[in-house]
Amino acid sequence: MTDIPGLSVRELARQVAQRTLSAQAVARAYIQRIEAQEAVLHVWQYFDAAQALAQARGIDAAGGAAGPLAGVPVAVKDVMDTADMPSGYGSPIYAAHRPMVDAAAVAAVRAAGGIVLGKTVTTEFATFKPGPTVNPRSPRLNEPHTPGGSSSGSAAAVAAGMAPVAFGTQTAASIVRPASFCGIVGYKPTFGTLPTAGIKPLSPSLDTIGVLTRRVDDAAFFVGILTQREFVIEKAGSLRVGVCSTPYWDSATPASRQALGDAARLLEAAGATVADAVLPQACDNLADVQSAIMSYEASLAYVPEYRTRPNDLSEPFRAVLAAGASVGGARYAALQVQAEQGRHALAALFDRFDVLLAPSAPGEAPAGLASTGDPIFSRMWTLLGNPCVNVPVGTGRAGLPIGVTVIGPRWRDEVALSAAARLEHAVGAR
Amino acid sequence: MTDIPGLSVRELARQVAQRTLSAQAVARAYIQRIEAQEAVLHVWQYFDAAQALAQARGIDAAGGAAGPLAGVPVAVKDVMDTADMPSGYGSPIYAAHRPMVDAAAVAAVRAAGGIVLGKTVTTEFATFKPGPTVNPRSPRLNEPHTPGGSSSGSAAAVAAGMAPVAFGTQTAASIVRPASFCGIVGYKPTFGTLPTAGIKPLSPSLDTIGVLTRRVDDAAFFVGILTQREFVIEKAGSLRVGVCSTPYWDSATPASRQALGDAARLLEAAGATVADAVLPQACDNLADVQSAIMSYEASLAYVPEYRTRPNDLSEPFRAVLAAGASVGGARYAALQVQAEQGRHALAALFDRFDVLLAPSAPGEAPAGLASTGDPIFSRMWTLLGNPCVNVPVGTGRAGLPIGVTVIGPRWRDEVALSAAARLEHAVGAR
Repeated sequence: MTDIPGLSVRELARQVAQRTLSAQAVARAYIQRIEAQEAVLHVWQYFDAAQALAQARGIDAAGGAAGPLAGVPVAVKDVMDTADMPSGYGSPIYAAHRPMVDAAAVAAVRAAGGIVLGKTVTTEFATFKPGPTVNPRSPRLNEPHTPGGSSSGSAAAVAAGMAPVAFGTQTAASIVRPASFCGIVGYKPTFGTLPTAGIKPLSPSLDTIGVLTRRVDDAAFFVGILTQREFVIEKAGSLRVGVCSTPYWDSATPASRQALGDAARLLEAAGATVADAVLPQACDNLADVQSAIMSYEASLAYVPEYRTRPNDLSEPFRAVLAAGASVGGARYAALQVQAEQGRHALAALFDRFDVLLAPSAPGEAPAGLASTGDPIFSRMWTLLGNPCVNVPVGTGRAGLPIGVTVIGPRWRDEVALSAAARLEHAVGAR
Repeated sequence: MTDIPGLSVRELARQVAQRTLSAQAVARAYIQRIEAQEAVLHVWQYFDAAQALAQARGIDAAGGAAGPLAGVPVAVKDVMDTADMPSGYGSPIYAAHRPMVDAAAVAAVRAAGGIVLGKTVTTEFATFKPGPTVNPRSPRLNEPHTPGGSSSGSAAAVAAGMAPVAFGTQTAASIVRPASFCGIVGYKPTFGTLPTAGIKPLSPSLDTIGVLTRRVDDAAFFVGILTQREFVIEKAGSLRVGVCSTPYWDSATPASRQALGDAARLLEAAGATVADAVLPQACDNLADVQSAIMSYEASLAYVPEYRTRPNDLSEPFRAVLAAGASVGGARYAALQVQAEQGRHALAALFDRFDVLLAPSAPGEAPAGLASTGDPIFSRMWTLLGNPCVNVPVGTGRAGLPIGVTVIGPRWRDEVALSAAARLEHAVGAR
């Protein structure tokens, strides 16, 4: 019998399209894993096995014509609209919300023959207030570590084998950090790659849709299908890697520093040229710039909820809005100019390096569920809009995974994905 | 008795806040003008006088504490969500749609004490299929000219004195063109200035919210309030103006060319330094780039509607989606790189000029309501993200107005607004 959860996304879709595997068998395999673990992991905001199976039946009825993602089960972060499932955005305000239409990215999955498995737990409006999700890689599940946020449920779903692919969104660090904490791949494409229609906006100049998967190829294949593109993964050839300690190196634990060093050595051993990359001065304080831009934009975007339902916003979320209101429009404009200068300066660094390597997070996932961890290492890359891929590399003192981020030039995601695939291969062969 | 529709937005808000004028008197004055003209002009997709008056009563009850836009009646383009009014996006698919919350920009108006007068006619999803709105400046209203699009009703509302300020959105030319056709001010801020939450997305890397007003100061004041900023309008001092014929000069009628020349001469007579501005080569074919990016992004954004309600999309809209689907993700990425190079190259031109002057449209509003006119002259500026202000300058052969666009550097909207105010003053004093 086929080991269904062991199949890559590409292989899964191929087999369903060729009818050597039924979409229903695929759905059942994942449903089984969900039902076996959900009571402990709290991954799903909404899950209905019958609804998932009904979609799979529809795909099987369509036979080989179902599309390039035929039968692929997809977990959807609950900041993305689904017309047939509640869309709660992690907030009591939207607990009963049923949007008229799917988010564009969700509709694209369905149009390509994929299955929407259910909605995964998000922090409140993709910010800070954690949900109940447990990191599946916690050494003891009754002493849970955070899966990271805000794509908490999506990362945990993939790490626990409940879904082969999950949508996440990143405004600060919400794909890369949970991927690092859960020991999986997190791919944040170049800003603007996947369509944001039907996503609850937080900070529109930063909000980026991406995916969480077990392997780099799954992410490349899946996002390629949704954006009418083929990401060609180069597994050999020259590769110039810049090791970037970032201005936030002081925040990195020894285990995170070691993971970065190990990643660099593994790539070098695999034939890459590795050197230290010094960021241009224009990148000096971009985490602060990102933070101010995010809170200012959030303070404008959430005026509707703040006006009408202030008591249904959490204290941490109201603190974000208050911080944003203190930024002011003139400073916001100046910060956007600064971000643009950073983008331009960083582009020049990519003349010398194909990709950069940097820490994904300060360390492994913190113990407890009271916080989803520190976004510090991803804020800058999100602001700059570059494609980022988290690759699991090391292990922390508590035994949880630690990832490294591969950063590529904007709009050349295939470069970042190729280097990430080489790192993944080198880590696996270690 | 105060001539209410003669008051500026700033003065109106001041008088209501100081209680020398009641919000209800303001609302009644505009309602009267709406009721007198609507049967002929077809400006409103939704209008309920009682609902507008009820809001005004609430403002009067709040007295001077109502906020900086106290009692200002605002017309809202019907691609923007309103929780208390239908939000139809110009499409039969959404005819009965009632969103859960207001668009962020609409909520900001209410939070500042403004009144939502009603929803104005938009073309289908802010693209090409025209609505029934008549250009109030048509020499004979029974032989109507188009008001332009897609912010058709918003431009007509302001031109007809039905509202002192109206929201518009621009993805290609949908604020500047209707402003030019209707003889009013259209202000498209730097991309990203006003919050897009709750706007039906068309092409998120281009969609820009802006305003239509009678005077430049109204636009500067209103957008300043909504973005926690004060745009200081410089009425004197040095001003370096670059006259930009654009790569689309062949499309300009003699009347549009004359308006551009007149605007340059008026500014020069008012003390500005005027010279021809030659665009960098990187700007050569950006209207085509804009067009391809817009259709590609629309083809992703509208998968939900295309999948479930294809027969409720118009033929022209389906043509946009089909054009977008033929672009492909790899070419889209290359086009975004090209746009970025254009932005960088244009920024250098603003070292030599404070603002550029360019045509707003090929000429005056075409006769008939079958088309909303040609967006060619605004596509490039929208793609580049620069602030644009249409100022009425000339008159075409049929007797309708013709505007000129003042373009400023990105994130320095006060520069464009200041130059536009000087041009407006010079035109008025002519």
